[in-house]
Amino acid sequence: MLENKNPQRTSLEKMGEFGLIKHLTQNFELVQPSSLKGIGDDAAVMDFKEDKTVVSTDLLVEGVHFDLGYMPLKHLGYKSVIVNLSDIYAMNAVATQVTVSIAVSNRFGLEALEEFYDGVRTACKLYQVDLIGGDTTSSNKGMLISVTAIGTAKEEELVYRSGAKPNDLLVVSGDLGGAYLGLQVLEREKEVFKVNPNNQPDLEPYSYIVERQLKPEARKDILEILNKLEVKPTSMIDISDGLSSEILHLCEQSEVGCNLFEDKIPLDPTVISTSEEFKMDSTMIALGGGEDYELLFTIDQADFDKIKGNPNLTVIGHMTDKKEGAHLITRANTKIQLKAQGWNSFSEE
Amino acid sequence: MLENKNPQRTSLEKMGEFGLIKHLTQNFELVQPSSLKGIGDDAAVMDFKEDKTVVSTDLLVEGVHFDLGYMPLKHLGYKSVIVNLSDIYAMNAVATQVTVSIAVSNRFGLEALEEFYDGVRTACKLYQVDLIGGDTTSSNKGMLISVTAIGTAKEEELVYRSGAKPNDLLVVSGDLGGAYLGLQVLEREKEVFKVNPNNQPDLEPYSYIVERQLKPEARKDILEILNKLEVKPTSMIDISDGLSSEILHLCEQSEVGCNLFEDKIPLDPTVISTSEEFKMDSTMIALGGGEDYELLFTIDQADFDKIKGNPNLTVIGHMTDKKEGAHLITRANTKIQLKAQGWNSFSEE
Repeated sequence: MLENKNPQRTSLEKMGEFGLIKHLTQNFELVQPSSLKGIGDDAAVMDFKEDKTVVSTDLLVEGVHFDLGYMPLKHLGYKSVIVNLSDIYAMNAVATQVTVSIAVSNRFGLEALEEFYDGVRTACKLYQVDLIGGDTTSSNKGMLISVTAIGTAKEEELVYRSGAKPNDLLVVSGDLGGAYLGLQVLEREKEVFKVNPNNQPDLEPYSYIVERQLKPEARKDILEILNKLEVKPTSMIDISDGLSSEILHLCEQSEVGCNLFEDKIPLDPTVISTSEEFKMDSTMIALGGGEDYELLFTIDQADFDKIKGNPNLTVIGHMTDKKEGAHLITRANTKIQLKAQGWNSFSEE
Repeated sequence: MLENKNPQRTSLEKMGEFGLIKHLTQNFELVQPSSLKGIGDDAAVMDFKEDKTVVSTDLLVEGVHFDLGYMPLKHLGYKSVIVNLSDIYAMNAVATQVTVSIAVSNRFGLEALEEFYDGVRTACKLYQVDLIGGDTTSSNKGMLISVTAIGTAKEEELVYRSGAKPNDLLVVSGDLGGAYLGLQVLEREKEVFKVNPNNQPDLEPYSYIVERQLKPEARKDILEILNKLEVKPTSMIDISDGLSSEILHLCEQSEVGCNLFEDKIPLDPTVISTSEEFKMDSTMIALGGGEDYELLFTIDQADFDKIKGNPNLTVIGHMTDKKEGAHLITRANTKIQLKAQGWNSFSEE
């Protein structure tokens, strides 16, 4: 069930590099008025008028960032776009274009790449971004994906990591820890599958957290909500490496401290029950588990009434003077220094 | 002599991902007024005012696009930037920023990455572009580089592949085939080195073509020359995959044909002598050998007098009606249909 089954396989060699790019990108339409020229020239051309241009890029490596053993290629294409759009939204900018480059070994056929691009197209369509470039090449081993996302914002709309002030409230969208626990479930089922390939795992109880891992969303909707509420965050970052690591980025760049309250951290019931099943502490998972792609931001206390009660937003702490440092206030009311427990690809080898 | 010797080796694990990026990019300054925010937030921010934004991206894979057996890491960093700048110049745009992402296996230490970034910095400095982002991560095997180049141009300055008209002159900068032959020399010396590691190859007679392979330049200077001469190309492309493949791109996108004259193709004396040594046809090398990063463009015949006699530019043919097709007119005055002989990474496996 978890294996990628694909009986068809058309060799990539036959198509050549240009034929391949043309074939894979033929069903992509440009919908953004700012996309003047997409794929097909030496470079793409965009017109952002007087607005600022925002650019972010990420590299995803098979065996390091994803495992094709349980990650369907369509989901991978989707997720590759999403993780980059998330960075653009974290600037309070509108994502408008992406470039997607892939390197694949000859174990991949055309059908596999079509599946991947199908996921890219689904993400582009849902988030209204245009695929405007990329590169398709071969690798000696495995699959590699590089995505660059481009966006635009008026100067006064941009939100950096550096604008938080003492007494600002710390707010997070959605809930945390699901993507990490979803990965644990998938890893466990992979091991079961190795021992008994006929075993059909029941992932139904874990569907929420598995989806958080395999098909995350970028919180474009949060920007729309904040815009409607007339709340402009003072600082913002997306949660790709775990809550504590991201809080420390905000603290460092804004030169402030932080008190984070354990009992305020939003957790889905599936996260709580699965943490117990894995004998893991759910707070530690929220603090250290990455890939949730929620938005973490600070707002002025005066804006509290505007966001109060919004089911998408949770106030989890407040910023302090820099000299007070960054701490977790536990349920038992003890104060623990926050440490970056984020995911480090170099330590996993 | 061709091996990369480095006695020092600091483990990447110790530094972590954020520490590593910070360390590697600490000596990069922002010089472009359009670079509002570089490395250090979720995304970089640029201000191109009313000008258009131009973006191009490339993926370079060890063992496919480069061989560290003879490619020093500093040169590799330099070349990775150059090949992307070349795409921006081929739009007649000014290159202003790059993002550089790398994935490396644990056989690379910090010193190796420092060397690589040293080359990136040298290219950035010489071409006056800012490093504004990127990603550094681990790979299971080998090294992978993804560069995105960003540039800017006024709408009326942009030159696409699609603007050539019948009777336009076909012009190329510099000379062709050197990078490909340089690679042949390096491959041969690598084989010799394998058999006899004490053998010191004499690369002096090949220094021009070896440099064309290891340290290519992007022809920013050609844009300045054309600008001074008040010549705006009707179409343009950079030569990364070989002359014939690039001519066919211009023909296809401009819906024209082309007559290319064999005796006009500019070849360096080293290319001619080394072709003979390798028993290869120098015309075939110019047509099919890639990585020269020269600019290929078309101009209106009325502009001929302006470029005539310029040592950097050679008229090698003229465009025709589409129905006449694209041909090479040989020295013996026979007409041979041009075929894409460009480098295809999928056929090399």
